[in-house]
Amino acid sequence: MGGDKAPQMIIEGANRFAANSPEISFLLFGNEKKIKPILGHCRNLTDKYKIIHTEDFIASDEKPSIALRRGTNSSMRLAIDAVKEGQADVIISAGNTGALMAIAKVILRPLASIDRPAIVTSIPNRKGQTTVFLDMGANIDCDANILFQFAVMGCAFARAAMGIENPKIGVLNVGSEDLKGHDDVRNVATMLKNSIYASQYHGYVEGDDIAKGEVDVIVTDGFTGNITLKAIEGTAKMISGIIKEGFMGSIWSKIGYLLASFSLKKSIKSVDPRFYNGAMLVGLNGVVVKSHGSADAIGFENAIKVAVSLVKQKINEKISKDIELAQESIKSAQINE
Amino acid sequence: MGGDKAPQMIIEGANRFAANSPEISFLLFGNEKKIKPILGHCRNLTDKYKIIHTEDFIASDEKPSIALRRGTNSSMRLAIDAVKEGQADVIISAGNTGALMAIAKVILRPLASIDRPAIVTSIPNRKGQTTVFLDMGANIDCDANILFQFAVMGCAFARAAMGIENPKIGVLNVGSEDLKGHDDVRNVATMLKNSIYASQYHGYVEGDDIAKGEVDVIVTDGFTGNITLKAIEGTAKMISGIIKEGFMGSIWSKIGYLLASFSLKKSIKSVDPRFYNGAMLVGLNGVVVKSHGSADAIGFENAIKVAVSLVKQKINEKISKDIELAQESIKSAQINE
Repeated sequence: MGGDKAPQMIIEGANRFAANSPEISFLLFGNEKKIKPILGHCRNLTDKYKIIHTEDFIASDEKPSIALRRGTNSSMRLAIDAVKEGQADVIISAGNTGALMAIAKVILRPLASIDRPAIVTSIPNRKGQTTVFLDMGANIDCDANILFQFAVMGCAFARAAMGIENPKIGVLNVGSEDLKGHDDVRNVATMLKNSIYASQYHGYVEGDDIAKGEVDVIVTDGFTGNITLKAIEGTAKMISGIIKEGFMGSIWSKIGYLLASFSLKKSIKSVDPRFYNGAMLVGLNGVVVKSHGSADAIGFENAIKVAVSLVKQKINEKISKDIELAQESIKSAQINE
Repeated sequence: MGGDKAPQMIIEGANRFAANSPEISFLLFGNEKKIKPILGHCRNLTDKYKIIHTEDFIASDEKPSIALRRGTNSSMRLAIDAVKEGQADVIISAGNTGALMAIAKVILRPLASIDRPAIVTSIPNRKGQTTVFLDMGANIDCDANILFQFAVMGCAFARAAMGIENPKIGVLNVGSEDLKGHDDVRNVATMLKNSIYASQYHGYVEGDDIAKGEVDVIVTDGFTGNITLKAIEGTAKMISGIIKEGFMGSIWSKIGYLLASFSLKKSIKSVDPRFYNGAMLVGLNGVVVKSHGSADAIGFENAIKVAVSLVKQKINEKISKDIELAQESIKSAQINE
């Protein structure tokens, strides 16, 4: 029931996904009266869904603490419960991110060895590939240990969701030289260099390197990460808006648009946010995927793809194993010093 | 001598500026052999310049501490000395930002009541106006007192350089609710609410609000500020690159470009970074303006415009007065509590 165009885009997204993946079935948590009419024209979902009816839902502006306390019968809570109880392999929500994280943390609990679950996403870069980026905003203050865990989880996500075998890691900073930044970024750099990730660690990356695609995984605290990602989103919208205005400026430019539109659309598709939709609340005992609230059916379909791929790749088993190996490698590096 | 296309673009920028401002004259610090040939075709500068010859310069990758120690005869250092000694009203440089700040701090010293000079710039927004943004990266860790001083200096800059009489202030954060963020952002919000800036304080702004132009001045620490601004720059470049590629995709799109280009260029001009070039190293006993290193003559001309306007508006007198009034207003608010 969460997201700007829910439940319509949720169900239509599932329907699109089901066309090519008949082995997947869906539990739909929410208001039956709103869900059923949409299912009428979603033929790929026939016999592939079960509705778990509830009239309760978490509003997009609900405080996480209140959502946690009062929302025990909400669609979001029931869906997370279903993952906890093994009735579902993964929850996908387009609703209130803060509430989703708060409820998931309490119900599913963090993975062993993970201090702070984070939100990881992938963003398009100039190489036509994707850059995995975390934390999107779950953790405001992050010390070097936390940032190190983010790096490990980011790599596991890059492998499971993107198929990048040995992801290159960058730590977001204000410059590339060793002395730049604050203690936490300098210390996580040292930890990565002393760990089994040494060969994958590329060094510091700056704000303009995000779009360049120099590295596969970018690690930062949730304060900087949230602001940076939203600034990128805002800039992308502003520039597309200005270009649209430019095309509407004269009759000649309108004709120009008609002639160029096929080629332009093909080119722009490489950075269409819908094809990158699907962030993961990573570091939890259960797979939790977050769709952008403004996603349409195509965007939500992509979030389902990400979710299914994470489950198939057993992302959480990988993270648990990786974090153990990584922490051992740091310890043995310290002993050898 | 600093910047990608120096000294050519510096002198040509001055020449462009001189066409409409015959009352301004220039001290040109650098290698005479490189400067003189360019002056040959810069007629507006005739009798309007003096060359202070030096072969020393600060390299773009020189560490600030080394630049400070070894660069005593560099063009940058001599230009800052000239401001200190009253031979120049303002220095404008396209060189190494870290070195410029380090040398300026030592030679010019911070203004009374200012703990940390910052770098302030203005960026285009969707309203077709500009948003003043600081700190661009001079100060990695900033407590609430420092952020408060940034707000005061940002407002003075908005008034002096942009002519915005009562700038609206926003504090960059991960959400708009009071409890969001870390202690420093929450405390600076409280300070602003209790000061003479109460009516100008708009609240928290998020990363995507930067482009929206909801506020005139955005305050953040230099770590987040540097990364955010570079991410914005990288995104803008990526999207323009993709659109250019789109236009080159087919013969039809090329014709489309020809038809639309006049209208598109007009529209894009509103966000052309050249017309926003000119950051200020604010909070120093002297006016120091920084041009983007990749600026061309039009960009550098704009940096000169900013510089002259800051001098004419007596920016530093304003800041000194404003910071005193602001700090007094906080004290009296605390006494009244």
